[in-house]
Amino acid sequence: MTSSVSSEQSMPLEMAAVETSANLAELTRADFPLLGQTACLGQPLIYMDHAATSQKPRQVLDALQHYYDHDNANVHRGAHQLSVRATEDFERARQKVADFIAASSAREIVFTRNASEAINLVARTWGDANLHEGDEVLLTLMEHHSNIVPWQMLAKRTGCVLRFVDLTDCGELDLNDLRHKLSERTRLISLAHLSNVLGCFNPISEVTAEAHRFGALVLLDACQSLPHMPVDVSRLGCDFLVGSSHKLCGPTGMGFLWAREELLDAMPPFLGGGEMIQDVYLDHSSWADLPYKFEAGTPAIGEAIGMGVALDYLNQVGLDRIHAWEQQLTLQLFDRLQAIDGLTILGPTPQQEPDRAVLAAFTVDGLHPNDVGALLDSAGICIRSGHHCTQPLHRHYGIPGSARASLSFTNTPEEVDRFAEELVATIGFLREHS
Amino acid sequence: MTSSVSSEQSMPLEMAAVETSANLAELTRADFPLLGQTACLGQPLIYMDHAATSQKPRQVLDALQHYYDHDNANVHRGAHQLSVRATEDFERARQKVADFIAASSAREIVFTRNASEAINLVARTWGDANLHEGDEVLLTLMEHHSNIVPWQMLAKRTGCVLRFVDLTDCGELDLNDLRHKLSERTRLISLAHLSNVLGCFNPISEVTAEAHRFGALVLLDACQSLPHMPVDVSRLGCDFLVGSSHKLCGPTGMGFLWAREELLDAMPPFLGGGEMIQDVYLDHSSWADLPYKFEAGTPAIGEAIGMGVALDYLNQVGLDRIHAWEQQLTLQLFDRLQAIDGLTILGPTPQQEPDRAVLAAFTVDGLHPNDVGALLDSAGICIRSGHHCTQPLHRHYGIPGSARASLSFTNTPEEVDRFAEELVATIGFLREHS
Repeated sequence: MTSSVSSEQSMPLEMAAVETSANLAELTRADFPLLGQTACLGQPLIYMDHAATSQKPRQVLDALQHYYDHDNANVHRGAHQLSVRATEDFERARQKVADFIAASSAREIVFTRNASEAINLVARTWGDANLHEGDEVLLTLMEHHSNIVPWQMLAKRTGCVLRFVDLTDCGELDLNDLRHKLSERTRLISLAHLSNVLGCFNPISEVTAEAHRFGALVLLDACQSLPHMPVDVSRLGCDFLVGSSHKLCGPTGMGFLWAREELLDAMPPFLGGGEMIQDVYLDHSSWADLPYKFEAGTPAIGEAIGMGVALDYLNQVGLDRIHAWEQQLTLQLFDRLQAIDGLTILGPTPQQEPDRAVLAAFTVDGLHPNDVGALLDSAGICIRSGHHCTQPLHRHYGIPGSARASLSFTNTPEEVDRFAEELVATIGFLREHS
Repeated sequence: MTSSVSSEQSMPLEMAAVETSANLAELTRADFPLLGQTACLGQPLIYMDHAATSQKPRQVLDALQHYYDHDNANVHRGAHQLSVRATEDFERARQKVADFIAASSAREIVFTRNASEAINLVARTWGDANLHEGDEVLLTLMEHHSNIVPWQMLAKRTGCVLRFVDLTDCGELDLNDLRHKLSERTRLISLAHLSNVLGCFNPISEVTAEAHRFGALVLLDACQSLPHMPVDVSRLGCDFLVGSSHKLCGPTGMGFLWAREELLDAMPPFLGGGEMIQDVYLDHSSWADLPYKFEAGTPAIGEAIGMGVALDYLNQVGLDRIHAWEQQLTLQLFDRLQAIDGLTILGPTPQQEPDRAVLAAFTVDGLHPNDVGALLDSAGICIRSGHHCTQPLHRHYGIPGSARASLSFTNTPEEVDRFAEELVATIGFLREHS
């Protein structure tokens, strides 16, 4: 854990790329100051809550500091040198996002506070303008609340109907049920690329092909998948995609919407204010070009720049290498967890689905997930317990919540082993004292 | 310029408070790394674009760095130690905002991306629920686009009517015209506390008293005033207030809405998603308590914490002292500018209105403001030229734009003199070459 990824030090990583699953934790760990801290009782801290938020490499924090110490100014509005530099950096970040998902133009990238806002933007603008009573929006049982509630609000406003695609027995998207529920009434399928609980990658190319046969659009919630694998919107064939900086090693307060340019062009604006206008008169206004039409007020400038540097970092580590290394960690994680008596993991196992994300949401017979989480926390291990913003999914399984360990490329095999050992000890202790 | 403001070094500032207008530039300047840089041609950089965005003291950047290096986690959702610390810091920031404007509870503070979003939130939720055809919203001719466009969009949705209060001859709010346009049809007056162009502080207590006589509410856009003077919502009597972190020495990507609790309670939610829900079912959801009902998705956690530290910083410098020092700079600024032939300053002079903000938007006979700005920039002086997001105000004066120098407590008297000298040279050069 001595080498690190930085713009000056790209060679070791690139050279190491010949291995199919280089130990990326060793290569990257030194870049994450938080991961080196000791927990509150003196143990080494083990962070396994990456599906809630990622940690930030020092390159991102350095970029934030550099922006505020050298270039900070409001963007687009002024001609002075700070504003010119800030604007260039800000728009360069937009291009980085476009490149990261292989979008054809930075004009198709709208900056938002988070992915939730991006979904709300689509529901409010595209949805209000295009959906009518009886039109259907297809969601799935595994969706995050952020991909359910905006559509419920839209349904209330427009009279459109929400339908939910079921799961297979092993906890994956049921494509047959999707085909069954898809019809000429379906205007949109909105679904996660990767479930934050089940760990399954959904077959998006198939979903978009099916949807487009009926003229329905597809919105992809890629918050969970983007940190773990290469994502290419043209290959997936989706029409909208939303992502979140804080889950991508970038700052909080920043997310984005991608949509095909002709869709964005046809959508009315979302919020009103400065930046998004062409001309303002007392009785009417005209709108700015894409993507500014959707960005009212001073944007999250530092956050956009920080997200851009986070994407540089992930590119340098390499999404393919991240995916390969995490698959290896997944096998180890499941090997350890499946050996624990009375423990049930939600979603497919790597045996059922080899391409499975490096997270495990689980229940333990007779124990409350919160107790499991709290005891692990006292051992310095940060996992999450609760409904993970997926109440309908947990209700589907008849459980109030689950414990979830969600890993990333910075986790070490030693941490996986220690987590499993502490979990066994935790379960033993709780059973003894219940 | 050697001493600085930090949590460890508060004494010198407090002791210095006996003077009514301590030289705050001397006391604070070392805290702002950006202000110490040289401009692109080697001159000392002079930043006079504070009305567009403020610079950030190192205390804010240190807090951001500390958050990401030690405590970064998603808030409210988990029980592990990082999440507990992040949540405590995040909610402490909310309390700091409440205290900064003397709100009665942190429950009344809703975090938004920027002030524009906060105004849109009110227009979409309170506005859509309460305004009907023929109802009137009263704005003023000096409003920023962010306080015009959301109401135009609301008018289009609801049929409510926008009316605009006129200005006096010297460029202040015309209270008589406001009284004339106020009626039982008026449901809301939405106006700036301090105009970002005219530099006048509007008489908010009088406006709220008049409005409340007719049962109308008052929304105060306090983006410009909050960095320059103490603001107390109960004394002002307003019903809504919006503010912006990046204008308050805090990070970008963060703003806030304050409203009286009973108003927020009665307002429907704005965006849907995680955080803002109590329970999510497939066919309906219930909403979280205040203020979370209005905060969908992962919030701007680092940004909130950074804004809280920025408010600490401003409190430590002292808003009363800032106001006194800036009044002194204002007199000097006007003294220099009023001596320049052919230069016209928009808004009241300090002779007409002693309590006038430390900014001057001006035109120069026969010259384009962009040329003035560009030439000053080449001399290392950052001012802004254009319409400053107030096209209707500039149209009122029959001009396409203006040049604007907007100062803060970090500006020195020497900078004011150098700005005036360079401006005289710039005007001379442009006149010679036109």
